[in-house]
Amino acid sequence: MIVRGENLIGGETSAAGPRSLRAVNPVTRETLEPGFPEATTGEADRAVESASGSFEAYRAASADQRADFLDRIAVEIEALGDALIERAAAESGLPVARLTGERGRTAGQLRMFAGVVREGSWVGARIDRALPDRQPLPKPDLRRMLIPMGPVVVFGASNFPLAFSVCGGDTASALAAGCPVVVKAHPAHPGTSELVGRAVVAAAEASGMPAGVFSLVHGAGHDTGLHLVGHPLTKAVAFTGSLKGGRALFDAAASRPEPVPVYAEMGSTNPVFVLPGAARNAAAEFSAGLAGSVTLGVGQFCTNPGVVVMMKDPSSAALLNSMKDAFAGTSPGTMLHEGIRQNFQAGVDRLRATPGVEELAHSGTAADPGKTEAGAVVFTTTAETWLRTPALAEEVFGPSTVVISCGDPQEMENLARRLEGHLTATLHGTPEDLADHNGLVSILENRVGRLIFNGFPTGVEVCPSMQHGGPYPATTDSRTTSVGTAAIERFARPVCYQDFPQASLPTELRDRNERGLWRLLDNAWTQDDA
Amino acid sequence: MIVRGENLIGGETSAAGPRSLRAVNPVTRETLEPGFPEATTGEADRAVESASGSFEAYRAASADQRADFLDRIAVEIEALGDALIERAAAESGLPVARLTGERGRTAGQLRMFAGVVREGSWVGARIDRALPDRQPLPKPDLRRMLIPMGPVVVFGASNFPLAFSVCGGDTASALAAGCPVVVKAHPAHPGTSELVGRAVVAAAEASGMPAGVFSLVHGAGHDTGLHLVGHPLTKAVAFTGSLKGGRALFDAAASRPEPVPVYAEMGSTNPVFVLPGAARNAAAEFSAGLAGSVTLGVGQFCTNPGVVVMMKDPSSAALLNSMKDAFAGTSPGTMLHEGIRQNFQAGVDRLRATPGVEELAHSGTAADPGKTEAGAVVFTTTAETWLRTPALAEEVFGPSTVVISCGDPQEMENLARRLEGHLTATLHGTPEDLADHNGLVSILENRVGRLIFNGFPTGVEVCPSMQHGGPYPATTDSRTTSVGTAAIERFARPVCYQDFPQASLPTELRDRNERGLWRLLDNAWTQDDA
Repeated sequence: MIVRGENLIGGETSAAGPRSLRAVNPVTRETLEPGFPEATTGEADRAVESASGSFEAYRAASADQRADFLDRIAVEIEALGDALIERAAAESGLPVARLTGERGRTAGQLRMFAGVVREGSWVGARIDRALPDRQPLPKPDLRRMLIPMGPVVVFGASNFPLAFSVCGGDTASALAAGCPVVVKAHPAHPGTSELVGRAVVAAAEASGMPAGVFSLVHGAGHDTGLHLVGHPLTKAVAFTGSLKGGRALFDAAASRPEPVPVYAEMGSTNPVFVLPGAARNAAAEFSAGLAGSVTLGVGQFCTNPGVVVMMKDPSSAALLNSMKDAFAGTSPGTMLHEGIRQNFQAGVDRLRATPGVEELAHSGTAADPGKTEAGAVVFTTTAETWLRTPALAEEVFGPSTVVISCGDPQEMENLARRLEGHLTATLHGTPEDLADHNGLVSILENRVGRLIFNGFPTGVEVCPSMQHGGPYPATTDSRTTSVGTAAIERFARPVCYQDFPQASLPTELRDRNERGLWRLLDNAWTQDDA
Repeated sequence: MIVRGENLIGGETSAAGPRSLRAVNPVTRETLEPGFPEATTGEADRAVESASGSFEAYRAASADQRADFLDRIAVEIEALGDALIERAAAESGLPVARLTGERGRTAGQLRMFAGVVREGSWVGARIDRALPDRQPLPKPDLRRMLIPMGPVVVFGASNFPLAFSVCGGDTASALAAGCPVVVKAHPAHPGTSELVGRAVVAAAEASGMPAGVFSLVHGAGHDTGLHLVGHPLTKAVAFTGSLKGGRALFDAAASRPEPVPVYAEMGSTNPVFVLPGAARNAAAEFSAGLAGSVTLGVGQFCTNPGVVVMMKDPSSAALLNSMKDAFAGTSPGTMLHEGIRQNFQAGVDRLRATPGVEELAHSGTAADPGKTEAGAVVFTTTAETWLRTPALAEEVFGPSTVVISCGDPQEMENLARRLEGHLTATLHGTPEDLADHNGLVSILENRVGRLIFNGFPTGVEVCPSMQHGGPYPATTDSRTTSVGTAAIERFARPVCYQDFPQASLPTELRDRNERGLWRLLDNAWTQDDA
């Protein structure tokens, strides 16, 4: 399939504006054709209006129809074949193997949500039957379930050009919930975005879904996105990216006449705590795992471990030595685009210039900036320095980490108490270490969305129990997850029906439970009829 | 028990500030003793700090301990006996029978949440067991559940001095979730607030809960509340009151360095749609029910029906006549305070002065402003007038309603599309009417939290299926409810544990399901062990 350079609005292509943007191959630095027309405000408005206009028809589709649509999107994305992988590799510099895996995850997410929709219990149906003879007043019949919110604006992320972009987790979960989606394409991979966008449009057509169920618009700066967020018909926003970008969208949405939820997944340094048993018994294994996690995807994951906290004790010299070896053995890699590389370099330079921070090691081979490459760097400092230098808590997006030495367990707890919100925290040690540090675990629980024992935070499993989120500034809404089946709940809200006749109730709430949903019937969970 | 006039901060009484406020009996206009010291910023800070300091201990309490605490609060409130009812009647002008019922609801809510906590499934436990042999990568063990957010600031509401004030639904659900609570007392009923506050403090002491789990502060204006919302250790806010007040708190919370959720339940006019069958066959019954609902609690319920939408057809003259009779037969009642009465009067005067709006009827006996009384008023207008007069959509808090005539079903749908968010919408008619108007129902579903058939929106059942909320401006967060068991979820967020040893997991997530919780185990609901 050829990339044409168009906005996709309500099932039609559109290129009304005068400005266009082009992608750059970060490996070769060559500008890629074609140009992509930046959406005008008129086009952005049409996308949201088209989404709103299709909402009633889309949410009226049966669960099976909606699930078939999601499955069909997966098929259409797979049918793009090598063309998609090649374009994504050219626009992102990511290896073909990684992108092939990411395409599998993207299709897998869509099929997972199709399964969630088909099974149907996600609507959280609750039924309390009437008690007409209750004293002093009769109890009415009340039935409650989740319904979709309305048009959702999704921002494609640069670091997952497939799995968290045009039809990644956010779009899949919003469509699954019954919400039309308008995607603001990430300007670093517009061609990949168009290809995936066309796959969604083709699936909507093939599945008989209303044309406005999906739109895709391009824009180089912030204006298009802010315009979409400010549109009165937009009902929710999903974003993965920087703290600055996510906060700007949150502020714009909160200051609307009608505020709407913003699910922004932003920066995180994902602290890793090395407890005594790990330092003593597993230094080499830990260090190899850490270097692998820090350099995975050239450090461009939200769950990249940017802080390691260890105890200064007899085993620390050996632990630091093994980290030194592990990081020296890593190779540089091409980052997603030059802007990210420059920011990373600036962050590393800032760390190098910070008093009390020492460079422990860096990748053994030199990075080639002409190929937009960056190498890994590991720094050391003390808890004392870290606590008095707030800038050290800021995320450096890329393959670097700062190792902090603590004098005693109390200092480790003090440091943990000073942490802002993160997506994850990790603890390494023996099970006994973990039990001995239950105070530390309790502190961390209040600051993160996921706690990992003897693993690494990169590698986010897509499943019902995943929580990918965390207190601010990791996200703008710690009550939800952007990965896993529970993400569907972000785009829905409860509605209650009082004394409705059976025929006018949604099928999910009728006495006869024809789809065998799990429902809370008179306060007891059951798959039975009411 | 004597009302002393004190703030209750972390288990101790405090009266550091120079200013004090006093309640006024709206029936007699007499000022009530004693004075209540307005909290200083230092006292407000201490309340939040004390809440935060108690958080780890409080959330570590077992489910049974927390449930016992909630039960004990109910007992302590009941033990206040007549003193509570008398003080509440003096401060609110509400009848003793109503307040006695409201006390029953307050105690009932506490015991309901005790039951929710004891049963335990509300934490939404999910377990995905490891698949160490999965290809290409092993699957880790992942377990997820809700944990409490931290200190919650609750604003007492004037219109429910017991059931939505110091220890009403918001406080009960936050405490149930494991969050310490700081209450900003409503200045209209400070004595009632102190009595209930003392009951909570006594229950905390008797149950061995940390002293900071509950604080109560007084303040006449907005400063104290805004200060509490802006405190960095505050993690969520709950409010019931005006649109202006709720929006101010939302804005303050959204503009914090770390934004926090605000659950503000604000104005709503709760439209009632009269479909042809009701107008034809049940005019007198409908009109009597409407007048009863509009005047219940002198119209001071969030669910008061302030708009009635009917069709202009051969039956409408008889319907309007029956409404006229029903409203003429109502009696005035004392409002909660003079400010509310004046606002109501100003709203009624505004309606009277609006071109195209006619007064149909008012209470047959005159209201005595010296007793802070207001009588019911019913107005009529056309859909055309309503659609071109945005001010008609504003809530007039009190016993008034506006009846809007539509020329045809299409105009009724157009009007429904123009509605902002409401707590409820009601439809009256035959089951066939409802089926014939499924387009209207679909429009209303997107604008309200609860749909009622052949009933009235006042009377909010406290049960698992209740949804008391709705799109903005009915609330600032349509994803949650302030009434019913699901309210506990507002004060919790999910945390995931990856590869944690059994001994370090919360009991709710261990293999052995000792409390028999409903859990999603490998994507299937069960009460079995893992």
